[in-house]
Amino acid sequence: MDPIRIGVVGMGKIARDQHLPAIAGNGAFSLAATVSPHDPGMPGVPHHRSLEALLDEGPAVDAVALCTPPQVRYDLAALALKSGIHVFLEKPPGATLAEVAALSARADKVGATLFAGWHSRFAAGVAPARAWLAERKIESVSVIWREDVRVWHPGQAWIWEPGGLGVFDPGINALSIITHILPRPFFLKSATLVLPANRAAPIAADLEFRDTAGAPISMDLDWRQTGPQSWDIIVETDAGTLKLSHGGAVLTIPSGTQHSEDHEYPGLYGRFATLIRGGRSDVDTDPLRLVADAFLRGRREITDPFHD
Amino acid sequence: MDPIRIGVVGMGKIARDQHLPAIAGNGAFSLAATVSPHDPGMPGVPHHRSLEALLDEGPAVDAVALCTPPQVRYDLAALALKSGIHVFLEKPPGATLAEVAALSARADKVGATLFAGWHSRFAAGVAPARAWLAERKIESVSVIWREDVRVWHPGQAWIWEPGGLGVFDPGINALSIITHILPRPFFLKSATLVLPANRAAPIAADLEFRDTAGAPISMDLDWRQTGPQSWDIIVETDAGTLKLSHGGAVLTIPSGTQHSEDHEYPGLYGRFATLIRGGRSDVDTDPLRLVADAFLRGRREITDPFHD
Repeated sequence: MDPIRIGVVGMGKIARDQHLPAIAGNGAFSLAATVSPHDPGMPGVPHHRSLEALLDEGPAVDAVALCTPPQVRYDLAALALKSGIHVFLEKPPGATLAEVAALSARADKVGATLFAGWHSRFAAGVAPARAWLAERKIESVSVIWREDVRVWHPGQAWIWEPGGLGVFDPGINALSIITHILPRPFFLKSATLVLPANRAAPIAADLEFRDTAGAPISMDLDWRQTGPQSWDIIVETDAGTLKLSHGGAVLTIPSGTQHSEDHEYPGLYGRFATLIRGGRSDVDTDPLRLVADAFLRGRREITDPFHD
Repeated sequence: MDPIRIGVVGMGKIARDQHLPAIAGNGAFSLAATVSPHDPGMPGVPHHRSLEALLDEGPAVDAVALCTPPQVRYDLAALALKSGIHVFLEKPPGATLAEVAALSARADKVGATLFAGWHSRFAAGVAPARAWLAERKIESVSVIWREDVRVWHPGQAWIWEPGGLGVFDPGINALSIITHILPRPFFLKSATLVLPANRAAPIAADLEFRDTAGAPISMDLDWRQTGPQSWDIIVETDAGTLKLSHGGAVLTIPSGTQHSEDHEYPGLYGRFATLIRGGRSDVDTDPLRLVADAFLRGRREITDPFHD
């Protein structure tokens, strides 16, 4: 079977750190081109300054991975789908829910694959956590996602703009995990979003959700954590405590602890190839919907200005 | 066929002004009970202080109309659905998107009807506007929804709380119309939300949407309008201008103007009866999704405090 010729659009940190190695490591894909208005691209790989230029001048691509900020992703995705090109959307899949729904309808219409990737769902502990929880009664859930924004998002102005999500940019990773592993749907009861006086997006948030059986789910997001970082999910059940730590990589259940190698982006590209070969799409907007609900329903507090 | 025995929960302004007359005027329903912790109810109609009390003590009901503020609607709807009782949700159908999705899944599971009512869609001009626009090319849309909050929402503290939507409480009516009459999906490009310094919800908003063919849709919401009120939708097309005014009641197209009697709530109850008799649900969250997108992506500005 011929490899899927893929173009990577947006050559920022996530593309270089994750997408390019995952593509290089997956025989189902061949890297056909890169696109960025700023970045010079890579030696030996055709490079264009815009997706339009790539589509006009070639080389031909079967798929694109959109690694740009979410605010510009709709136009790129719509343009690719217009040519029947399969699209991988980095998380979050768009700046609004309605645009993702419109893309999803468009992909179905043209028969192309649209994949809204949630990389944290492919962390090593997530699939076994989901399997273990499927048979338990959930009593409570606590999510602690505290990191240092200066380390993980240095100088990324877009992340503080409307549509950039602020601390929900990492927080949506936690939501992508818990929407996947918890056996019941859940929804927001209350939220407080803390915004720096000079920024449009939150630097911290406290959220209270409840599942449809009444179990409380609390979430503590903070971008001001220095020193050790926390990406932990603790689920209390009728059969003891489950803990997912290190962003989902390490699973601890009463019978012991499992560590595995990181394979988030390899997992994503494996899934993308399977979807393309099967002629299917996978556009789950549940994590983004919960974030939108937090912005819709949350109370806002203003805190000290933030400077990079 | 026996009438559908209905309980009205939440006896505020909208219940008394609209729901009770519409139920009285529709032979498919009989008003079985009312529920309110504050209101004394109506002469000759059984009254309870809570939905729990109604369900425990009777009389039996087949359906309930939830006319409470949206922040408490989920628990009431979940309780009713648990007993297989059909549920009519006033707009907006909930305080969050995820809770409405959870209710929808629950209704499907128990085989009860869930109806998210959008009353403005039943305004007299809306159905003919939709039919006329189905064959046109849309060039631009302008929505002007300006009213005096002191006239329409006197002393309603909940509407200013998180989950209460502020000026989007009327604005969502316009969104419910344009999502229904425009032939293509559309999504938010930018928004500015204007909040009084002492309130958690916007008093005004400027929104720019775009449809999937690129047509611009602007929306001007303001709660500070005194004097004449504006609830107008103007659609420029390749065949001339369509104008829906008076909240959808009056339709003007190049061939002339149509006025009709108001029949929004009678239309809603007709639809609710049809859904119940047909064993179906109708839970369209598109208008609320667009509002959530505006809160998610919108830029906030603070303005003068608002006092009732």
